[in-house]
Amino acid sequence: MEGKKIKIAVFGSGSWGTALANVLCEKNYKVVLWGRDKEKVKKIEELRENIYYLPGYKLAPSLEITSNIDYATKDTDIAILSIPIQGLREFLKGNNTYLKRAGFFVNTGKGIEILTLKRPSEIIKEELDVDFNQIATLSGPSFAKEVMEKKPLAIVIASSDLNTAKYLQDILSLSFMRIYRSDDIVGVEIGGALKNVIAIAAGISDGLGFGYNAKASLITRGLVEINRMAILYGAHPFTILGLSGLGDLILTSTSALSRNWTVGKLIGEGLSLEEAMNKLNGMVAEGVYTAKSAYYISQKTNVYMPITQEVYKVLYENKPPHEALSSLLSKELKHEIDEDFQFNLL
Amino acid sequence: MEGKKIKIAVFGSGSWGTALANVLCEKNYKVVLWGRDKEKVKKIEELRENIYYLPGYKLAPSLEITSNIDYATKDTDIAILSIPIQGLREFLKGNNTYLKRAGFFVNTGKGIEILTLKRPSEIIKEELDVDFNQIATLSGPSFAKEVMEKKPLAIVIASSDLNTAKYLQDILSLSFMRIYRSDDIVGVEIGGALKNVIAIAAGISDGLGFGYNAKASLITRGLVEINRMAILYGAHPFTILGLSGLGDLILTSTSALSRNWTVGKLIGEGLSLEEAMNKLNGMVAEGVYTAKSAYYISQKTNVYMPITQEVYKVLYENKPPHEALSSLLSKELKHEIDEDFQFNLL
Repeated sequence: MEGKKIKIAVFGSGSWGTALANVLCEKNYKVVLWGRDKEKVKKIEELRENIYYLPGYKLAPSLEITSNIDYATKDTDIAILSIPIQGLREFLKGNNTYLKRAGFFVNTGKGIEILTLKRPSEIIKEELDVDFNQIATLSGPSFAKEVMEKKPLAIVIASSDLNTAKYLQDILSLSFMRIYRSDDIVGVEIGGALKNVIAIAAGISDGLGFGYNAKASLITRGLVEINRMAILYGAHPFTILGLSGLGDLILTSTSALSRNWTVGKLIGEGLSLEEAMNKLNGMVAEGVYTAKSAYYISQKTNVYMPITQEVYKVLYENKPPHEALSSLLSKELKHEIDEDFQFNLL
Repeated sequence: MEGKKIKIAVFGSGSWGTALANVLCEKNYKVVLWGRDKEKVKKIEELRENIYYLPGYKLAPSLEITSNIDYATKDTDIAILSIPIQGLREFLKGNNTYLKRAGFFVNTGKGIEILTLKRPSEIIKEELDVDFNQIATLSGPSFAKEVMEKKPLAIVIASSDLNTAKYLQDILSLSFMRIYRSDDIVGVEIGGALKNVIAIAAGISDGLGFGYNAKASLITRGLVEINRMAILYGAHPFTILGLSGLGDLILTSTSALSRNWTVGKLIGEGLSLEEAMNKLNGMVAEGVYTAKSAYYISQKTNVYMPITQEVYKVLYENKPPHEALSSLLSKELKHEIDEDFQFNLL
């Protein structure tokens, strides 16, 4: 790559894809943002603003915006995939030959495929037939708007190959965006996915007016059940305590900027799932889908995930939110460590 | 105790002592709330409302309020000590012979004594010369106002003797107040104390306008350094991930109801420590003192606590808040698990 600018292409012009592409223009890279919808891409290009998903922020002059997959993938060193997880496989399948040109694939999506119960990096591996050492996931607490405002953040890049993580860490880090590295892509992907389900529970609790005390304990117990599942899948037991688990969980559960929390809150206030989703203006609350995947996994594996299970029942079985949350908050008294942590966590 | 009502006396008529005494009247106990200040106690009794620390809430008809230590301690089964930690030893010393009459001592204070670097249960043991199996600490996410409104909460009772914890768990639990038990009083006390220091850091970050992303990563890294110290003192490595560590940390760091967060926020906005403290109307932000104790401990033991150290420097060495927070957010890039968790945490 000597003598040539590094080319980064971001696929998916949602809020996070747009923000990430935009700030990467700070460095001396060629950055291309690819969007599927020709009309929208044209409009974004014309206005130099993503009025659909990130209104109010002008885009960096050097950011190229395109819906041409050939142009976006040509000579691309790093392909950043910022695609909703339930649509990731279809996107990869449809653009397989183009995408394979890239050297590295960085997933920023947070979810688990419902049909296969697979993680993003597994889907990428299957559909592009590349090596795991070409694949990474970037995750952690990162509201797009704040990144556009260059407010400081810390996130994590994970790859099963630590050299890949280290290379991408160097490339993607910015003065205000500190990136940690990890070789535990399983833990990072599961943490990023499941925190959205707990955030929906936190939103429901807030919608019902249960207060800060209840929410804090829900989040705390939520982290335990996320970790239970992560460990079952071979994650390092501390990964979930890092930025992609705990950090993102705190962000998503305690701020009105969060789509997943918002969906939960609206449901707690009495809206149906459909009504709540319609209020997001076309944005996706991944936790609504991940609740399904995680529920299926908990059924299949018998891992104890009471919060996830109650969220699933509220979303898909019409369980009244008040009943679901009350059942969570009135479990039998327990020894905090022995029964919930020591034995169940590890 | 057959044939006789259990008597619980709560010492300290701050917001939490008052709320706890009040809701314990739900059960068939004799509950007495003791306050030091005769005038205030008289007024609270007269108005049936703690206008000083918990205004707007009527007290339960059966709650007795007194400033008479003899009356409060006579035939008392459980003495709940709800006293600011820096004044706990003096209170115990001064009322030693009375207090010793109680069967059990439940501390609800959150802090570490600056002069001795001791925890509340150690101070109780030293001053009352009772057994550790008579001592417990009740901690976790619990804003007093929400408890008065009977909003659901989950907290933890810890004693080095698990039978003591179990006994007190049964006595103190209420339909809307779920109490977990733990035999790790070290972890529970350290978690409850140190989370206030991190909450000050979170408040400073918010006061500076650093945003949700930055705060989420600060809280995440904060939990790691709390755990580092807790483990050094022999705590179980998972206690800090429970209600008294993580749960209370989330509560205190993400809500405007928190005194410690508020002090931090005001300092971040440019006020001096003294000006910020004056805005609390006589309430105590324990984290301001715990920052000192924790800083001394980190110096003495060489345990790596960068957030605590920066908070100390802001509070006591006039370090500009912006400089302190920026230095925290611009550390050298690291491997998230290996360098911060695996090796430093355990």
